[in-house]
Amino acid sequence: MTRERLYLYDTTLRDGQQTQGVQFSTPEKVQIARALDDLGVDYIEGGWPGANPTDSAFFEAAPKTQARFTAFGMTKRAGRSAANDELLAAVMNAGTQAVCLVGKTHDYHVTDALGITLEENVENVGASIAHLVARGREALFDAEHFFDGYKDNPGYALEVCRAALEAGARWIVLCDTNGGALPAEVGRIVGEVIAAGIPGDRLGIHTHNDTENAVANTLAAIDAGARQVQGTLNGLGERCGNANLTALIPTLLLKEPYASRFETGVTRTALVGLTRISRMLDDILNRVPMKQAAYVGASAFAHKAGLHASAILKDPATYEHVPPETVGNARIIPMSNQAGQSNLRRRLAEAGLEVAPGDPALGRILERVKEREDEGYSYDTAQASFELLAREELGLKPDFFEVKRYKVTVERRKNKYDRMVSLSEAVVVVKVDGEKKLSVSESMDETGNDRGPVNALAKALAKDLGRYSVQLEDMRLKDFKVRITQGGTEAVTRVVIDSEDGTGRRWSTVGVSANIVDASFEALLDAINWKLLRDAAASRVRDVV
Amino acid sequence: MTRERLYLYDTTLRDGQQTQGVQFSTPEKVQIARALDDLGVDYIEGGWPGANPTDSAFFEAAPKTQARFTAFGMTKRAGRSAANDELLAAVMNAGTQAVCLVGKTHDYHVTDALGITLEENVENVGASIAHLVARGREALFDAEHFFDGYKDNPGYALEVCRAALEAGARWIVLCDTNGGALPAEVGRIVGEVIAAGIPGDRLGIHTHNDTENAVANTLAAIDAGARQVQGTLNGLGERCGNANLTALIPTLLLKEPYASRFETGVTRTALVGLTRISRMLDDILNRVPMKQAAYVGASAFAHKAGLHASAILKDPATYEHVPPETVGNARIIPMSNQAGQSNLRRRLAEAGLEVAPGDPALGRILERVKEREDEGYSYDTAQASFELLAREELGLKPDFFEVKRYKVTVERRKNKYDRMVSLSEAVVVVKVDGEKKLSVSESMDETGNDRGPVNALAKALAKDLGRYSVQLEDMRLKDFKVRITQGGTEAVTRVVIDSEDGTGRRWSTVGVSANIVDASFEALLDAINWKLLRDAAASRVRDVV
Repeated sequence: MTRERLYLYDTTLRDGQQTQGVQFSTPEKVQIARALDDLGVDYIEGGWPGANPTDSAFFEAAPKTQARFTAFGMTKRAGRSAANDELLAAVMNAGTQAVCLVGKTHDYHVTDALGITLEENVENVGASIAHLVARGREALFDAEHFFDGYKDNPGYALEVCRAALEAGARWIVLCDTNGGALPAEVGRIVGEVIAAGIPGDRLGIHTHNDTENAVANTLAAIDAGARQVQGTLNGLGERCGNANLTALIPTLLLKEPYASRFETGVTRTALVGLTRISRMLDDILNRVPMKQAAYVGASAFAHKAGLHASAILKDPATYEHVPPETVGNARIIPMSNQAGQSNLRRRLAEAGLEVAPGDPALGRILERVKEREDEGYSYDTAQASFELLAREELGLKPDFFEVKRYKVTVERRKNKYDRMVSLSEAVVVVKVDGEKKLSVSESMDETGNDRGPVNALAKALAKDLGRYSVQLEDMRLKDFKVRITQGGTEAVTRVVIDSEDGTGRRWSTVGVSANIVDASFEALLDAINWKLLRDAAASRVRDVV
Repeated sequence: MTRERLYLYDTTLRDGQQTQGVQFSTPEKVQIARALDDLGVDYIEGGWPGANPTDSAFFEAAPKTQARFTAFGMTKRAGRSAANDELLAAVMNAGTQAVCLVGKTHDYHVTDALGITLEENVENVGASIAHLVARGREALFDAEHFFDGYKDNPGYALEVCRAALEAGARWIVLCDTNGGALPAEVGRIVGEVIAAGIPGDRLGIHTHNDTENAVANTLAAIDAGARQVQGTLNGLGERCGNANLTALIPTLLLKEPYASRFETGVTRTALVGLTRISRMLDDILNRVPMKQAAYVGASAFAHKAGLHASAILKDPATYEHVPPETVGNARIIPMSNQAGQSNLRRRLAEAGLEVAPGDPALGRILERVKEREDEGYSYDTAQASFELLAREELGLKPDFFEVKRYKVTVERRKNKYDRMVSLSEAVVVVKVDGEKKLSVSESMDETGNDRGPVNALAKALAKDLGRYSVQLEDMRLKDFKVRITQGGTEAVTRVVIDSEDGTGRRWSTVGVSANIVDASFEALLDAINWKLLRDAAASRVRDVV
């Protein structure tokens, strides 16, 4: 049986950026676009060029992808031609293969919000789409407020969509802009739209999660015949968010009736990267990943109930609707039992440490991890710090150098121009190969600005580590995350540092302390030790070869 | 038209407690039960007495409620009578009006997980329910794995449910235990169950959110005829959580076809308390409330897109599917656009600053806010810093004191016992009433532990501010949040500080700098200035009165 093609349209970079507090930089957009392309979505909506200066900048920097880049914009305004609308021109100038234009389909919005006649609006939509098509672009019409409009005046809502279709739109995207539609009515209305002559394979569905039904509304539209699905990674988006592609994609690939009926651009192999992509986005947003997220959440396959946990050991299908590894996630059974140890051995093996089942060190490592997690550490992402901790218990952690003491000063005072400035300075004393070394650094960057105490400390620490200094030359600190794990100024601070070296290798380390500078120092120290350890292992391999 | 009664069954205290990391204390359970009762749910499932010692303790301490307290347990085991099953006895001993017993309806689980015959299982279910009824309890049968079981062997799944019904169960609760069912099949199967002779007004629905369809699955079951709805506050629960009552209740009360068709125990007045109850639960769990949560999230009615924000001013219904005040939530419109000026005036009024429409200061304030937001500030929550900024533009900010300079030292070194310890020290120089004052503080707490540089700085700053010092005595730092707004160790740090004083007043301030200590200092300074300002205003009022 040939399966029908279902198209996936991602709008993380446009509608996703409407999330309160979210503003992507161009490099972040590039990183997200690459991940979406690897995943296999068909369209990547990159933003609204002209309306948002950073969106225009991104289209210039957009990476080459298999997925079709799409620019978002608005249909032309009344009283001018499409060619003379400078807002539309800015959208066209982004030079994307596909362009998606939003227009009104709810009569009330046309007359009251836009203040134009119903006929003028139909003309604006038709002429704008025709303009895109004439210039060789794939045209999408984003039918704003479609479901509310259809409920009030079905004839007019359909008339606008037909105008777009007749002007050559590849897709008519039915939008539940307010997020208020419910699954049963979405299914019914999409069915009626198809019956009214707009084919399902020209219909897209764009839903919002204001009643927690965005995913279900999307499935209802697919059931009724729509063949393009719009959504965002992790359900980002205005208000309560858009339909969550991170939940929809695995349902479409793994679950019936969808798995047998449809084909998408996402392969089963690419699906295994889903959890990683979801976490990457949270990382960019500096958000704590939602533990309860469907499929990709850390708790999605965690079996806390005693009854469940023991049944799972006999047969995972008893309490799991899909295997966690299909989406790159993992089963969690409390570490304190039999299943926890094999999980730990797998994680150690990933770090190149083979430990026999039943080795008493396993129990000690689990104990240490639990203790430290109680103190505020988190090893979920800080794999390098986890490895160092395990190596310590296994007696496999070399002492490259010893930190005797450090001192950091932060000052704010008037400079010679009588302006208040801040300045940080760090002194680090280490012992390497029996020799004591003092280093000092300050935190000024090239422009004379203070980059803070952690920066000064990182520079001082790497400055003179004797024979190891040369190995640290290509090491860069890529990211620095801070989380307060208790309330009050007397809170405990967790710092996670991501580092990278010249080979493109990236690793994460964690430090915890009531003192934020000290927590940072601990994470920095782990980062350096891990790098020296890996380089030492690599050079041993070279010696043997 | 008389509306049909729909019953709400809350399992926050039982299935909700299966959430990874969640364990309620007895006083917390009492607090949650009271809130649920105020809201108007029909049943409160309090836990599994006997299986969990804290659950048994709770039933003893359970508050008097309108809602029916329900104890959860398991049907009796094979080879003994219901009266002789000590697990069932423990459940009965809780003395609740209603008892809900879970049993198997999936043939595979009966034979493979329980290892008993299909007939034995039917007998266990029937006899257990009859036992409850004979002792005057309202009996509920929790049909575990019902949907999976029905798909594999509909005849057997129905037979078990019928046995419970015939034994006198008030409710047969159809459970999607693994969370893998999808809305269309839930609707179809519930319809078939009713057609097979189990009346809809005897059917409950219990779903999980593993595909993000728990709410939609519940609605599909209601559409098909089920009349009891099970769920939890904020969607707490095993793995991805249970059906979220915080999303379901407003949909059932406010939206069609449900609002006209059904009656529940929740009144429109009680519904206004929903946002508060949701936040209270997060507070108990020490969780950051989910901004994007349907209906109750802080972003649920936040309109970021420029187009949306201006339309909202004309008519909120243009971009809101329900009025935010119906669930006790509030609309948020960003200040940076046209809609912003009236919003800004409202926000200023909240701070006691009446500014006439069209006052040029409004434009200047918006400009400053935008500039600072570009630098990394965020005034969404930091209302006190926002007020200080506005007062500066309005010429209404008194200078209480001037900070001439400060210096903070963070050291890590061996102490006299040869143990590595860290220590922070701060010196602050201020000018108050023409007089220069030097203060120094260190960061040790009572136990001799370093609480970090921000703590030392806060103490030194408050130590001697001349005549103002007395006013700061009752001021406490309650929370301290850090967010890095760019990547790298050269990132910009945003610090938000929550303060509180003796009157219970709470206020939030923000500071931004590449230097985390300096960002904290800025937020501390705002916190002190705001406190002095409010006290000065209060004393003026006293003078006049």
